[in-house]
Amino acid sequence: MQQGGTSSLTSDCFPLRSRNTAACGSETSSEPQKPEPADLSRMRAIAIFYGFYLLCFVLGVACVVCVCVWNSAWRGGFAWDGSSLQFNWHPVLMVTGLVVLYGNGAVLYRIPLTWGQNKLPWKLLHAALMLLALVLSIVGLCAVFDFHNAKHTANLYSLHSWIGIAAVALFAVQWVGGMAGFLLPCSPISLRKLLKPIHVWMGGSILVLSIAACISGINEKLFFVLKGVNGTKLYTDLPHEALLGNSLGVLIVAFGLVVLKILSTREWQRPDSRPEDMAYTPLLQEENE
Amino acid sequence: MQQGGTSSLTSDCFPLRSRNTAACGSETSSEPQKPEPADLSRMRAIAIFYGFYLLCFVLGVACVVCVCVWNSAWRGGFAWDGSSLQFNWHPVLMVTGLVVLYGNGAVLYRIPLTWGQNKLPWKLLHAALMLLALVLSIVGLCAVFDFHNAKHTANLYSLHSWIGIAAVALFAVQWVGGMAGFLLPCSPISLRKLLKPIHVWMGGSILVLSIAACISGINEKLFFVLKGVNGTKLYTDLPHEALLGNSLGVLIVAFGLVVLKILSTREWQRPDSRPEDMAYTPLLQEENE
Repeated sequence: MQQGGTSSLTSDCFPLRSRNTAACGSETSSEPQKPEPADLSRMRAIAIFYGFYLLCFVLGVACVVCVCVWNSAWRGGFAWDGSSLQFNWHPVLMVTGLVVLYGNGAVLYRIPLTWGQNKLPWKLLHAALMLLALVLSIVGLCAVFDFHNAKHTANLYSLHSWIGIAAVALFAVQWVGGMAGFLLPCSPISLRKLLKPIHVWMGGSILVLSIAACISGINEKLFFVLKGVNGTKLYTDLPHEALLGNSLGVLIVAFGLVVLKILSTREWQRPDSRPEDMAYTPLLQEENE
Repeated sequence: MQQGGTSSLTSDCFPLRSRNTAACGSETSSEPQKPEPADLSRMRAIAIFYGFYLLCFVLGVACVVCVCVWNSAWRGGFAWDGSSLQFNWHPVLMVTGLVVLYGNGAVLYRIPLTWGQNKLPWKLLHAALMLLALVLSIVGLCAVFDFHNAKHTANLYSLHSWIGIAAVALFAVQWVGGMAGFLLPCSPISLRKLLKPIHVWMGGSILVLSIAACISGINEKLFFVLKGVNGTKLYTDLPHEALLGNSLGVLIVAFGLVVLKILSTREWQRPDSRPEDMAYTPLLQEENE
């Protein structure tokens, strides 16, 4: 526990520590030192990161609020009875799980606050967030399969469903592969090194698939329900529901692009090149430290 | 011209040259030398690159063939008369321009064959390919606007159209910004350094938007035309046209993910960190060399 406590105290200044320990340990220094230009550059990079991270968080919350308001206020709310109210769980759970939670889980290691600390708790949090995202996505799929089955409608015929099911299937493979490759004590370092670039690329690819599935799904749903019959309005007239649905799509794309920006910016990557990060440390040993 | 000729002769082995010039210039060496492990690793990286590049090319050709066959054999062919035959230009031109040509233009600098050569001709080819892609995309937009106007249908109401128009608008901004920032002789090096990461990120983002627009567009079109009325089949029964349209969507996603993989792999990036690549050389001077 002592190690964890020490780490949390130094974590904020970890990115600077490797170059200038005095900048973090000013209480042990007899006189204050000016930060070096390289440190200022790193501080600026970290400040920009937190700007993007805040944007990611705000966009994620906006996506969840938007999809919940759409399906509760405009689509009649939620149930689990095979009716269209059961279908309403589908967009809510897919956007919340496969996009927002997934994206937040993906950028977890990029938070500089976590860099000076033992990686294992963050690995476990990453795995837990991704598992929750996967479970929500699978429940979201169950909602639409049940709804289709109750209406005797075919499943998995549309391009939207092909892309969506591919995203969830790849996500499941990714989670199992990540668990086996990076968390199981028996996985060798050579396997981790081989898996890491594949894991990172598949992570980004699943997000791209999720975005494409969400956009096509929202577009399809708005065409289905805004036909101008039985008192509904026409999609072409851009009623409030259409504006809300389209805005949800724009927010999802913006969230995805911010997440991909965070993932692809090299200077925001956790300094994992240090050998101890790839080395195997038994789970219980790390937990007891 | 002499420089260009020399460059083309040495370009294939440029990635190895910096470490071991004898490996490329064996005719000047008295005895053959074994490649070093680092060179073998680079050769393997280049071989893997060309595997991905071939995949990118094959998938791109498959996308274009697929969208042309769909719109000529199943949708009645092409015209420019405000009818649905004019609409058929829309998917063909968007997939060809905004996805396939765009993606090929984006990965151009990653081809190791180009690394040992003067960058300017490749910059011009990159700009020309992107301009052609942009023009095709704009003509593709004109096709659907004309079709809507002839039918007195609203424009730009659906989420598909919002994402698609955002992709083309950002592409236009990106092209003008790229032209001004990287090709105009008056653009300073400091501006180029500032612009480059933005240009690269926007490039990937536009591709993600294009993929999302294509998937939602194909999905929407298949729902519109496969309704089971007037002799048409039902989308839910997955007739041949639905299989072809869905396959086109899968091919577009696969193409996009391969392009994003090529763009994001660091060891496949052109070694642009060399200062001479960022320095300004007047256009005419480079052309006359």
